[in-house]
Amino acid sequence: MERVGYYNGEIAPLEELKVPFLDRVSFYGDGVYDATMARNGVMLYIDDHLDRFFNSMRIMRFEPNFTRQGLQAELQRVLDLAEAGDMFVYWQVTRGTAARKHEFPAVAPNLWIMVVPLPFADLTKTVDAVSFEDKRFGYCNVKTLNLMPNVLAAQNAAEHGGQEAVFVRDGFVTESAHSNIHILKGGTLVTHPADEHILPGIARKHLIAMCGQLGIPVQERLYTLDELKAADEVLISASSTFAIRVAHVDGQPVGGKDLPTYTRLRDALQAEFEAYIAANAR
Amino acid sequence: MERVGYYNGEIAPLEELKVPFLDRVSFYGDGVYDATMARNGVMLYIDDHLDRFFNSMRIMRFEPNFTRQGLQAELQRVLDLAEAGDMFVYWQVTRGTAARKHEFPAVAPNLWIMVVPLPFADLTKTVDAVSFEDKRFGYCNVKTLNLMPNVLAAQNAAEHGGQEAVFVRDGFVTESAHSNIHILKGGTLVTHPADEHILPGIARKHLIAMCGQLGIPVQERLYTLDELKAADEVLISASSTFAIRVAHVDGQPVGGKDLPTYTRLRDALQAEFEAYIAANAR
Repeated sequence: MERVGYYNGEIAPLEELKVPFLDRVSFYGDGVYDATMARNGVMLYIDDHLDRFFNSMRIMRFEPNFTRQGLQAELQRVLDLAEAGDMFVYWQVTRGTAARKHEFPAVAPNLWIMVVPLPFADLTKTVDAVSFEDKRFGYCNVKTLNLMPNVLAAQNAAEHGGQEAVFVRDGFVTESAHSNIHILKGGTLVTHPADEHILPGIARKHLIAMCGQLGIPVQERLYTLDELKAADEVLISASSTFAIRVAHVDGQPVGGKDLPTYTRLRDALQAEFEAYIAANAR
Repeated sequence: MERVGYYNGEIAPLEELKVPFLDRVSFYGDGVYDATMARNGVMLYIDDHLDRFFNSMRIMRFEPNFTRQGLQAELQRVLDLAEAGDMFVYWQVTRGTAARKHEFPAVAPNLWIMVVPLPFADLTKTVDAVSFEDKRFGYCNVKTLNLMPNVLAAQNAAEHGGQEAVFVRDGFVTESAHSNIHILKGGTLVTHPADEHILPGIARKHLIAMCGQLGIPVQERLYTLDELKAADEVLISASSTFAIRVAHVDGQPVGGKDLPTYTRLRDALQAEFEAYIAANAR
């Protein structure tokens, strides 16, 4: 199968799979998810993603009916059914199937998995971004399925010629619609603190750790959209991009003033990724 | 059928109906909804609900592939398939079925309807409420499917012996998890302004209009949880409750100091409801 869907153990071609109308995702978006990239059947930084997923479940009070090892085995099983190559491995848990009522139902959660082909980004390319008011809720540290504001921001970016959004909350840059965002200024990486207004990205974590290894100082602090526009470089990070440069924000050129620091970071992250895949080859 | 489900024209017993895994509700909660009560096949204040639903679609940028008249006819058709009696009529539109990608897909939206039995509340009873920090997003004026915070608040209320939540944002009461909330103080109804932090409830609209008819002053302004606890009466309003008294908040007795004003309001709203059903009898 090229594109595989999984729902509570049922496996089918993704486009054919059906789920109950009464899954609570239908009424409340009542679920949490996580996702990673895979190459040659190896799920990248899977321990980090499982850590975050179980943390998301804890914060949103899901009671999994599976173990971490059991989940990892199911993800691997579905991945192995898909074709070889670079794949996107996505999973979520929703709060069961029950009549619509806000309070938690006394039923088991539902486990969803999908695996589809997705290439890693070409890190030598750049993306353009478009700012969008961040009116999101105070649970952005959790990977929930309540993502309508992200949808609106991404659509707005696309309509203005961009590939990503820049959320701005009370004048400060928080993150992007499906990435974290960072700036380089005077050789220092500046990034929003990991509070309730941003997702603690796995790629962000590896980026910060790599700065430590390379001797690049890191400041986790608030910064404004004007600071971003005046930065030496603007970077976004996600599981399929590691760290990719932003070339325009709201149609205005940004960055391009510290390629040496960017290139060191990018190449080191690329090497770390390749080493991980090699070390975990099956 | 006692409980009827509908998905893009397909009708089945609600518990048996299935929908595509790739409906965008599954990944983003990407949809808006509305709902009303029905008695004897008459949908209560349906024009108000359709107004609000089309406004929700406009704000969230849905492009319906149905007219208002067409939707109303479909709702009536599904309602007529259900049993007689008091029913909950719920519908939502989601942003189509497509591979997971934040930007809007170039596909038609999906229309969901369900009709299930639900009695109107006994207005002589009271409910207890439990406060909960309002960390919701700035789109609460829209009836979206991004409702996890409401789920958490309702569950917290239930675990503390309550039937409703009181959301408190920066010290001010906004609304409840599935109702608006109001106070009576010195013969005046005080309620949160209809801004992006609350849903513009249809029952709230009728309550405010009824205050006008009865000569009860209305103030739409912010008020604190302390003001609520010291109020003469605390009321919640929703489509199945009109206006029902809150007896305890966080375990502490509230209200009970202006039953004459409450009773006038409640009886007038009940009479308005009964007159609507009679005038629209089929």
